[in-house]
Amino acid sequence: MINKLVAGIKKTEAPIVVGLDPMLGFVPQHILDKAFEEFGETLEGAAEAIWQYNKGIVDAVYDLIPAVKPQIAMYEQFGIPGLVAFKKTVDYCKSKNLVVIGDIKRGDIGSTSTAYAVGHLGKVKVGNNSYAGFDEDFVTVNPYLGTDGVKPFADICKEEKKGMFILVKTSNPSSGEFQDRLIDGKPLYEHVAEKVAGWGEDVMGEDYSYIGAVVGATYPEMGKVLRKLMPKAYILVPGYGAQGGKGSDLANFFNEDGLGAIVNSSRGIIAAYKQEQYAKFGAQCYADASRAAVLDMKEDLMQAWNK
Amino acid sequence: MINKLVAGIKKTEAPIVVGLDPMLGFVPQHILDKAFEEFGETLEGAAEAIWQYNKGIVDAVYDLIPAVKPQIAMYEQFGIPGLVAFKKTVDYCKSKNLVVIGDIKRGDIGSTSTAYAVGHLGKVKVGNNSYAGFDEDFVTVNPYLGTDGVKPFADICKEEKKGMFILVKTSNPSSGEFQDRLIDGKPLYEHVAEKVAGWGEDVMGEDYSYIGAVVGATYPEMGKVLRKLMPKAYILVPGYGAQGGKGSDLANFFNEDGLGAIVNSSRGIIAAYKQEQYAKFGAQCYADASRAAVLDMKEDLMQAWNK
Repeated sequence: MINKLVAGIKKTEAPIVVGLDPMLGFVPQHILDKAFEEFGETLEGAAEAIWQYNKGIVDAVYDLIPAVKPQIAMYEQFGIPGLVAFKKTVDYCKSKNLVVIGDIKRGDIGSTSTAYAVGHLGKVKVGNNSYAGFDEDFVTVNPYLGTDGVKPFADICKEEKKGMFILVKTSNPSSGEFQDRLIDGKPLYEHVAEKVAGWGEDVMGEDYSYIGAVVGATYPEMGKVLRKLMPKAYILVPGYGAQGGKGSDLANFFNEDGLGAIVNSSRGIIAAYKQEQYAKFGAQCYADASRAAVLDMKEDLMQAWNK
Repeated sequence: MINKLVAGIKKTEAPIVVGLDPMLGFVPQHILDKAFEEFGETLEGAAEAIWQYNKGIVDAVYDLIPAVKPQIAMYEQFGIPGLVAFKKTVDYCKSKNLVVIGDIKRGDIGSTSTAYAVGHLGKVKVGNNSYAGFDEDFVTVNPYLGTDGVKPFADICKEEKKGMFILVKTSNPSSGEFQDRLIDGKPLYEHVAEKVAGWGEDVMGEDYSYIGAVVGATYPEMGKVLRKLMPKAYILVPGYGAQGGKGSDLANFFNEDGLGAIVNSSRGIIAAYKQEQYAKFGAQCYADASRAAVLDMKEDLMQAWNK
């Protein structure tokens, strides 16, 4: 799957992943009205609204980008109906040949980590049958529990030729509280990065490992160091746009060949029509605004990509 | 909810939480047969089997214990039907007046963390209505992202009078890879513990905070230090039984009054009938074996509790 991701980035010339993180406040009124008319102001109604909203965006941008990253929390908040919308979104994106990164930030130990890995990347055995629960292509994983937490995901990745991105340095302001603390003269995130590089050696694709890393766009200087520490890890970069990161800040995350990083934008794309810059599209044409925002992001990233 | 938990522990004299972490391999054949007969060897069949299995255990032990801790990964592996079984289990346990700790180990930032908190502890707004998605009483939270990840949970806890347990020192062998690394002469888990104590000051119940901590039974010496660093945090202690922790190791986790800790056992209770000690019950009476195992655990813990 890492090979498919790299091929998709080369083909689209867009190291972009669109974060499908729908909030009801982003969904245009006409979609809300229709969903609530059919299902009422219920969890089912909310789930229908975010699914239709997602579908519109995916239809408008799928040919421009290699991957999407649905954030499962935004679906989980609507309980079971929300998770049904998550699954529908994953399936629909895969039918459009997009690589799907499930932003699930799971992490546990032993058989529990295996259960998450099986549920999101693999197949679970039921009697003589096997079923995929959510069936994303990649997931995000929290490293706090160490190798015991990561190994079960790596095993399933190997089996299914899928992948994961491990949180190394997150994009939020307080990420430094623990991640930046110095251990033997080096910040914790560098120690995590060294582990990521080690874990990844075992599960190599053609040029990059099945195991990548999450490093926030908001910390470009750290990106430079981390790029070197994990030469074979694809870096998933959140924090572009709404969180303040800019294309020109991102050169450090890429390798010389322009590969090695994929930059996420969520509300900057999916709620583009709410920004002044794209307001002309209006709520009815929200998906066209998203398409325009992807094209603008692609241009902005060129500065970093073709450094 | 922390007050309800403490009251329940006092009433049952059992600082015990039963981990409802069903694996299909634990479910007795007669339950599997019935579920597969009705739903086939499908995800729905698996979900029905684990739900019926859980129900039997809860019916057999609910009067002995204050709380249960369903591990969501074990349900999530069966996709949507599995999560429906999770929700049924949560609701059923609450109807039996048990405190429900959702072992979800979520952790993200900002609006995403809020979405998890809303989905698991709070209510989500849909138009003019509000709905609880999963509605546990407590959840477990991963601290790697710092205050940005924890604060949204704390806000919802305050609003709903619910609680959370933050991972401080986990019970697994490789937990030391990052958690034990020294920062300014102290291991990372102590720094996390100090934060937990600080975060918890803002959301106090009667004697304990809404914000507790997870500290593995397998590290009793660390338990001693952590008990002192977080005097108002209830400690959720995994790793008893199957992972090697014993009652006599646990004295350090409790305060002088015998409160301050609640010890989890999962397969040691729910799959007791598979152990030699309880084999006489047989698979048909698996729930009676679980009851016997709870009573034995209670006695074993007395050593620590009445130190």
